[in-house]
Amino acid sequence: MTDRRALIITGPLFEDIELLYPYYRLQELGFEVHIVSHPKYGFELTGKHGYKVKVDLQPNQVEPGDYDVLVLPGGKGPERARVFPEIVDIVQWFMENNKPVAAICHGPQLLISASLRNPSILKGRRVTSTPSIRDDLIAAGAEWVDEPAVVDGNLVTARLPPDIPFWMKKFIELLRKQNII
Amino acid sequence: MTDRRALIITGPLFEDIELLYPYYRLQELGFEVHIVSHPKYGFELTGKHGYKVKVDLQPNQVEPGDYDVLVLPGGKGPERARVFPEIVDIVQWFMENNKPVAAICHGPQLLISASLRNPSILKGRRVTSTPSIRDDLIAAGAEWVDEPAVVDGNLVTARLPPDIPFWMKKFIELLRKQNII
Repeated sequence: MTDRRALIITGPLFEDIELLYPYYRLQELGFEVHIVSHPKYGFELTGKHGYKVKVDLQPNQVEPGDYDVLVLPGGKGPERARVFPEIVDIVQWFMENNKPVAAICHGPQLLISASLRNPSILKGRRVTSTPSIRDDLIAAGAEWVDEPAVVDGNLVTARLPPDIPFWMKKFIELLRKQNII
Repeated sequence: MTDRRALIITGPLFEDIELLYPYYRLQELGFEVHIVSHPKYGFELTGKHGYKVKVDLQPNQVEPGDYDVLVLPGGKGPERARVFPEIVDIVQWFMENNKPVAAICHGPQLLISASLRNPSILKGRRVTSTPSIRDDLIAAGAEWVDEPAVVDGNLVTARLPPDIPFWMKKFIELLRKQNII
């Protein structure tokens, strides 16, 4: 029915709307959307606000080349996810292959973990995030800017939930430019 | 900056994602989106899952003709809102003027209230909703169908959160057809 596929990486206590908006938005565009989490956290995750989502895949079941785009929602999910190297592998693959990546709030923590393996993933790149991890991104070599949605090559970042419409608009413009949609 | 305007009618304990998705989605399309609730509930509403939204307008401040579309999210908001005639006035105006209305889950309870004043608002019209208010819609004369998103003229209804991508896709198709976007 569709050959567009999106991956969302998260963990327990994700920020509900930052996961659910892109989850439904990409479905609206005809994507099949899969949620990846570590099996340690089980096959159903609960967000900070109590929404539950089914985990479709464990990280070792993911073939990144089968997916067009990666989404990294915020909340506490990224901190829980980044401690597993096999999850960071996936983020690293998308960034090194210049595939579209959308990250919001604490989502960029996963980019920092990937940048420890390959500093060019963040070095000198314009990004934003929740202000509380701004200094981590600067420490990792990124240029942090205070804007609702920041595009740098394959990467589209945003700060907090009110940025969602700007974030997704820029991300979808990128998908159009890359002929993914 | 924009001359497209959308109204969302709700009340306390709205279903968070059913309000937030269209709220951000319509902003993504360039709409200015206003939330209307009765002043009895204060100027900030909390959803069932704890998300807070600012109330922009009281019902007696709304000039319906200034708005292009109306959205009726679900949760407990619609039951709390429908008891105020000045809120039902707004719903009635949109339905009688064939302006686009999107309703999901318990949102159609507000349509039932409006149909008590003008039965043609629901009589013989194809709609859906959360199954728990199916019988109320049938009692009000509607033809209830079990589909993710149901379009009948100006009205686009859906059942539950997983229907959101289908609901919004159909609603946006309607906005395109009517040259609103």
